[in-house]
Amino acid sequence: MTLRLARRMSGVRPSAIRDLLRFGADPSVISFGGGYPDASLFPVDELADVYARLLVPERSAALQYTTSNGLPVLRAQVAERLTRDGASVTADDVLIIQGGQQGLDLAAKLVVDPGDVVVTEDPTFLGALIAFAPTEPTYAAVRTDEHGMDTDDLQRVLEANPGAKLLYTVPDFQNPTGATLSFERRRRLLELANEHDLLVVEDTPYRSLRFEGSHRPTLLSLDTEGRVLHLGSFSKILAPGLRLGWAVGSPEVVERLGLLKLAADTQNSTLNMAATSAYLETYDIDAHVARMRPVYRHKRDLMLATMDETFPDVVTRTRPEGGLFVWLGFPEGFDATDFLGRVLLPEASVAYVPGATFFPVTQQPNHARVSYSGVPDDRLVDGITRMGRLLHREL
Amino acid sequence: MTLRLARRMSGVRPSAIRDLLRFGADPSVISFGGGYPDASLFPVDELADVYARLLVPERSAALQYTTSNGLPVLRAQVAERLTRDGASVTADDVLIIQGGQQGLDLAAKLVVDPGDVVVTEDPTFLGALIAFAPTEPTYAAVRTDEHGMDTDDLQRVLEANPGAKLLYTVPDFQNPTGATLSFERRRRLLELANEHDLLVVEDTPYRSLRFEGSHRPTLLSLDTEGRVLHLGSFSKILAPGLRLGWAVGSPEVVERLGLLKLAADTQNSTLNMAATSAYLETYDIDAHVARMRPVYRHKRDLMLATMDETFPDVVTRTRPEGGLFVWLGFPEGFDATDFLGRVLLPEASVAYVPGATFFPVTQQPNHARVSYSGVPDDRLVDGITRMGRLLHREL
Repeated sequence: MTLRLARRMSGVRPSAIRDLLRFGADPSVISFGGGYPDASLFPVDELADVYARLLVPERSAALQYTTSNGLPVLRAQVAERLTRDGASVTADDVLIIQGGQQGLDLAAKLVVDPGDVVVTEDPTFLGALIAFAPTEPTYAAVRTDEHGMDTDDLQRVLEANPGAKLLYTVPDFQNPTGATLSFERRRRLLELANEHDLLVVEDTPYRSLRFEGSHRPTLLSLDTEGRVLHLGSFSKILAPGLRLGWAVGSPEVVERLGLLKLAADTQNSTLNMAATSAYLETYDIDAHVARMRPVYRHKRDLMLATMDETFPDVVTRTRPEGGLFVWLGFPEGFDATDFLGRVLLPEASVAYVPGATFFPVTQQPNHARVSYSGVPDDRLVDGITRMGRLLHREL
Repeated sequence: MTLRLARRMSGVRPSAIRDLLRFGADPSVISFGGGYPDASLFPVDELADVYARLLVPERSAALQYTTSNGLPVLRAQVAERLTRDGASVTADDVLIIQGGQQGLDLAAKLVVDPGDVVVTEDPTFLGALIAFAPTEPTYAAVRTDEHGMDTDDLQRVLEANPGAKLLYTVPDFQNPTGATLSFERRRRLLELANEHDLLVVEDTPYRSLRFEGSHRPTLLSLDTEGRVLHLGSFSKILAPGLRLGWAVGSPEVVERLGLLKLAADTQNSTLNMAATSAYLETYDIDAHVARMRPVYRHKRDLMLATMDETFPDVVTRTRPEGGLFVWLGFPEGFDATDFLGRVLLPEASVAYVPGATFFPVTQQPNHARVSYSGVPDDRLVDGITRMGRLLHREL
């Protein structure tokens, strides 16, 4: 047959993330690629307990269909957590989604027509570019530094793109740079969003994983106009294999996202929602996250210290205050994709995500994202050391 | 803020299904609305066993991310099941999806541009119309009878719509009519699809639930040109709360659906995939389904017998050989939506799905879909009897 593709498919192509999830499955490769949490931190015993309590005949509703917006009790629990984080949220404001990624798909469907301008950090989360692609956006990218999106540059970008509809940001421990948006810039970002009437998508998968520095308020909590769509996820604080996240926003936004969610996949897994709700009811997730933070701090420190010892000085790296990622800068002319395929994987069985595809407008080849979270300490040191040796030879 | 919606949102509106999933949650209402399987048939003990075996520290991979196309072992098991059902399928041909519904969303994204013609049965599955809506199709609807889609009418419809791209069908125990496509029509449908170069989406959520009559081959098994995209689901044979289904098609289709799946939600729940795979490995799902069939046959018989006793003769009903649904036809001039809201719910606390919204082009108000699967016997008899009494009064 002749497959007559829809026009949107011209922007839907194989991605670095997908290939790297494949590398990650090969146990002989030390992969700093995927944003995998440390599997040894999953609360396995507690989850075993809650699943066992649900999988009994009297509770067969946990295996049945439920309402498409998500189990009401879980929505209330998410609302309560966000309220403790400074926003004023009720269960009705919460939509349970299939991980944060689904929120990106739904948000783009909600507002983006082909050609519409989406504003992002430069670089930005590759998974967001993948999620947005089927809606055929064009991009305007805003300069970032160690304090996140540069709001002076954002102002220029918005003035140059008066029709922009959606601003996408990862304000806490950004993917891929690890940078956190300063308080002043959060306020300024919202002022500019108000001025230009943007929907602001605040993506916060790493927010609870701060192991250093001081707490910043969410954009959701600072928003006075109902223009922030806040996305969060249980993937990094509980387990990614449950595929549970949340979307919170104004009634007119959440109502429509709920319709798009119903259209896309009916609902999330009832069993996983019920189990997560039971976990939150029975156990202390904040205490669990508090136990994770020093582990990730230790891994960040170990990675940066190993880089200090083994990397050439010309290779820059960021120092995140939380989250999972360090962002590497190589000298001009260095091609991180070429180095990965030609040297790092074949000679050292080490992988990272080449940085080029994180840039929505002008790809810069001399960057890479490395994650310290999913690799045991000995392999982390081993992998970074091998990478350092090859970088010395290459540079 | 002023929410500037994307154009596709003009077709995304609240649906009867969503409202009825809400009715279904009210225990005082006897709802024949949702296509809920009988929760007492879920293999709870077996699922408790497989989850307990997975939720141990040595198997933390079940809580981690995995490849976006789905756990390879589960893909192989699905391929093996479909091969036993007459198609030649390998694990590479299988994409694991979030229930059959996600396959509809992905299929429409793959080929439908705004205004493209999608051909469906008349009436067709409401959830498919909801899934397709964000791609802004137009519809051409094909007459159906007790043997499914009328292929003479299909020929006329295709000649009248030479640009049609996608043909959607539920060949086994259709939703909402319960009709099954005859063998001759299956062959003819594919001939016409070949002639008009259509992508055929074969949706088979109820296929295993045949309790009467003779087996028909899948369109997938009859396809010689790689034009059938076959969708299936564990929702009705295992449990809907796991949200697991599969999409099977040609390499060029499945490759691209995988990219769309990654964009939409990264992957299905690793834990639920691993548990379903372990269930299939340890237990005999065919024996389980064989135990379900007489239960559904009994419920169909009980519903039809109760209708024979209590319904006015002018109300027609179909007699499905499997699946979950009976389709009611009321006299001309009867409005099933009005009757539900004005009489049936307030006076009898009984619900069905009004039929109008199942018609993609010209809504016929004098139909309703009733499901016998999810209601205990005593409530089934009670609810149908109450409905019959009110229908006698009304007609």
